[in-house]
Amino acid sequence: MTTVLTTDPRTGRTVPTHLEESTPADVHAAVAAAVDDTSVLRRAGRDGRAALLDLLEARVLEAKDALVETAAGETGLPTSRLSGEVDRAAHQFGLFADVLRDGGYLEVMVDHADGPLPEVRRMLVPVGPVVVFGASNFPFAFSVLGGDTASALGAGCGVVAKAHPAHPLTSALSARIVTEAAQEVLGADGLHLLHGFQAGLDAVRHPAARAVTLTGSVAAARGILDVIAEREEPIPFFGELSSLNPLVVLPGAADSRADDIAHGLFTSFTGSGGQLCTKPGFAFVPDTEAGDRLVRGLREMVGQAPATVLLSSTIRESFTDGVEAQVAAGAVRVASSRPDPAGIGVAAELLETDAERLDPQDAHECFGPLLTVVRYRATGEVVRALRDMARSLTVSIHADDVDRDAVAEVLAVATERAGRIVFDGYPTGVRVSWAQHHGGPWPSTNSQHTSVGATAIRRFLRPVAFQNAPEWVLPAEMRDDSEVPRRVDGVLRS
Amino acid sequence: MTTVLTTDPRTGRTVPTHLEESTPADVHAAVAAAVDDTSVLRRAGRDGRAALLDLLEARVLEAKDALVETAAGETGLPTSRLSGEVDRAAHQFGLFADVLRDGGYLEVMVDHADGPLPEVRRMLVPVGPVVVFGASNFPFAFSVLGGDTASALGAGCGVVAKAHPAHPLTSALSARIVTEAAQEVLGADGLHLLHGFQAGLDAVRHPAARAVTLTGSVAAARGILDVIAEREEPIPFFGELSSLNPLVVLPGAADSRADDIAHGLFTSFTGSGGQLCTKPGFAFVPDTEAGDRLVRGLREMVGQAPATVLLSSTIRESFTDGVEAQVAAGAVRVASSRPDPAGIGVAAELLETDAERLDPQDAHECFGPLLTVVRYRATGEVVRALRDMARSLTVSIHADDVDRDAVAEVLAVATERAGRIVFDGYPTGVRVSWAQHHGGPWPSTNSQHTSVGATAIRRFLRPVAFQNAPEWVLPAEMRDDSEVPRRVDGVLRS
Repeated sequence: MTTVLTTDPRTGRTVPTHLEESTPADVHAAVAAAVDDTSVLRRAGRDGRAALLDLLEARVLEAKDALVETAAGETGLPTSRLSGEVDRAAHQFGLFADVLRDGGYLEVMVDHADGPLPEVRRMLVPVGPVVVFGASNFPFAFSVLGGDTASALGAGCGVVAKAHPAHPLTSALSARIVTEAAQEVLGADGLHLLHGFQAGLDAVRHPAARAVTLTGSVAAARGILDVIAEREEPIPFFGELSSLNPLVVLPGAADSRADDIAHGLFTSFTGSGGQLCTKPGFAFVPDTEAGDRLVRGLREMVGQAPATVLLSSTIRESFTDGVEAQVAAGAVRVASSRPDPAGIGVAAELLETDAERLDPQDAHECFGPLLTVVRYRATGEVVRALRDMARSLTVSIHADDVDRDAVAEVLAVATERAGRIVFDGYPTGVRVSWAQHHGGPWPSTNSQHTSVGATAIRRFLRPVAFQNAPEWVLPAEMRDDSEVPRRVDGVLRS
Repeated sequence: MTTVLTTDPRTGRTVPTHLEESTPADVHAAVAAAVDDTSVLRRAGRDGRAALLDLLEARVLEAKDALVETAAGETGLPTSRLSGEVDRAAHQFGLFADVLRDGGYLEVMVDHADGPLPEVRRMLVPVGPVVVFGASNFPFAFSVLGGDTASALGAGCGVVAKAHPAHPLTSALSARIVTEAAQEVLGADGLHLLHGFQAGLDAVRHPAARAVTLTGSVAAARGILDVIAEREEPIPFFGELSSLNPLVVLPGAADSRADDIAHGLFTSFTGSGGQLCTKPGFAFVPDTEAGDRLVRGLREMVGQAPATVLLSSTIRESFTDGVEAQVAAGAVRVASSRPDPAGIGVAAELLETDAERLDPQDAHECFGPLLTVVRYRATGEVVRALRDMARSLTVSIHADDVDRDAVAEVLAVATERAGRIVFDGYPTGVRVSWAQHHGGPWPSTNSQHTSVGATAIRRFLRPVAFQNAPEWVLPAEMRDDSEVPRRVDGVLRS
């Protein structure tokens, strides 16, 4: 038996926990239980599952103090940030409860019989057990209590959650909140927690697993995809992976609000230690006087900033390597914050380069407080860079009325290369709401799904059609007297 | 240069065509052109693409005689069946034109700004070039003029179509219809045809390909998935592959209409030479007097049936092997139709076995006119068999009022194991309409998509969200004055 360790990034101290890495037998038991849970969740219906999600929203908020304290000791993230993240995680459960009560997510369609053509009624049903790999940087909102768990439970799928090794105690506390609530409402656990790298891959390999989600690195995604490729039956993989999040300041915007943008950018790339998948990694700034002023503002703020505690020494190593790689590729270090010798700390870094010097192939995601400013003279330089850089979750565009032509040019390539376009704002801070989309073409995610917003539930659903079914066999939502939104003979009825 | 050959299954004669296998340069040119076509299709908007699909519906019908004659010489399918299939293919273009005009497929959602929360507007956009592998058994409805092409063009994606080697001339004629219409409406080809096994895989390998569809075998799917696994960027694969389509006759239904069911089953498994992905492969018949009568009816009809011309000698070989494998596994040949020495002909076969003797692992899809009757004594035997057999596109249930308890038992497992449940009918003959679903858990398809019905278009779309966008940059459908169905602040508006 292998004891699970935990590290406090504020001190760098690693200690053993009361937890043990999951054995192959644990993995099998977890997936088998998730199969049974799927039946229980399905039988509970939308009302039963909405009641579970409502209760989870309340329980997560009730446990906030314990959650924040535990996570602070494992992640080094500020308690204010962690407290906000608990609120967000709770809200996500509430959003999916609303989604269930609305019922439109079932995509019910009815085509009545038409002469020789038979009646067809269609709706979505749960796919089965979902294996959820949580992220290191969001111990709540993208981990055991995250949107993947909320949307999978809402869909009616049992969850097997792989605890992130950077916050095992937070994961264990989170799992207990879910299982206690699920036992109360449904008499089943709903979620089963695994610890250990091998256990996670074994869960993906398990024949009864039906979908996998990951918020993590491209390397981790490749590892999971390799295991899926070896399965007898392929299953869908939903990864949220890597993103450069280019931000473009057009000349008019720089002229009218260079200082505001400098401040917004600074806050966005240094918040949470720059450890956000939506952190702006590259800022395109015009080679104008106003652009100079913007960069000067950034330099001053970075120079005065305190050091940052990172989530883990692995992240610190790849941060340091990432900064050095960009310097080696020709970027110049123009400001650094104060370094801090305590715990797993680093200085925030501001680099500057030129659109002509930047090789888009050298632009890699660097998790942590690094921003690279790219100076440009013509919109065409920005368009070329966006087209040749890796695809992203987001592209942000700062523009004034005088920039309209440039906006059109940038937007055309941005829509091809990213999933979310932010106007006159910053990509960090993702609103959790019905219309939200968090995803983009590979390698930001695998393109066709979202991991935030109401439609995240669709990842765990599949269609079923009933032909000529007698009324009494139809699920409630397929019947004519159901009030869920539906399309009848091609006409949408809300 | 390698000349493409074509075979007439009615005579077995193989002759060269005027076509040549595509070279690597052809593949590159085709995918590059499909990238440009995607831009053209997108700029054409929903109206432009609907106009193209409407024109294609008309042009396909106008070309019916030539299409049917060409396909008859390459597939050996009866002209009445081919004529009906041309109608269906034309109708599919029309259905997607309706889907575009409705606009609900874009899944527009708008969350207005709310205090500090920014406005978010979301819709779906095309993924980019789609590589379409057509099926041998549907030279129109699941080939170059099929639902994959119609839905991809409707979504706004350029198509690279791999011609099936069993009907290259039909494919070439089909492609010309598409490109001529697209040139007329949009000034672009819209579709690019490739010939040759290697060319198909090279298209999948091409970095600019963004999705792949296949209606074909599990082995072909594995080959394509292997190529996708080697790509630098994974892309989605939508396969419609293999299906046993179990049909269950419950005792009450056998009592009340054994003769009708025998007739329906005979028509369903022998139609189109049994070469349909929805052909019922296994019929569960109660071990009762009425069940005996049903089987007797089947034996008589099979014994008097003419021989069948199959699509290709490859299919004939695997049909013969498939029949022998089931006999080796314990099924007994209870009737054969007259054999035919001319061309690529076989006799229809009726096998019989027992639920206790049937090993569900031995139940493999056998393309061609074979039905295996499985006699059972208790519903539990049927449930166990359905649970342990490979998953399917369809399960069919014949029941009377006295069978209600059994229906509930069978339906529970059927919904888990199939994508379409047919009541008191036969799985062949798939209505093309909004609510239709053609797909099911692996290996019937890869579970979460459909290849028939309005939602087939979603395979080729991905979400994009705009945050705080000024009105003038919004696509028409995202604007407040658009009339497409949408969800605003969580409330669906039709």
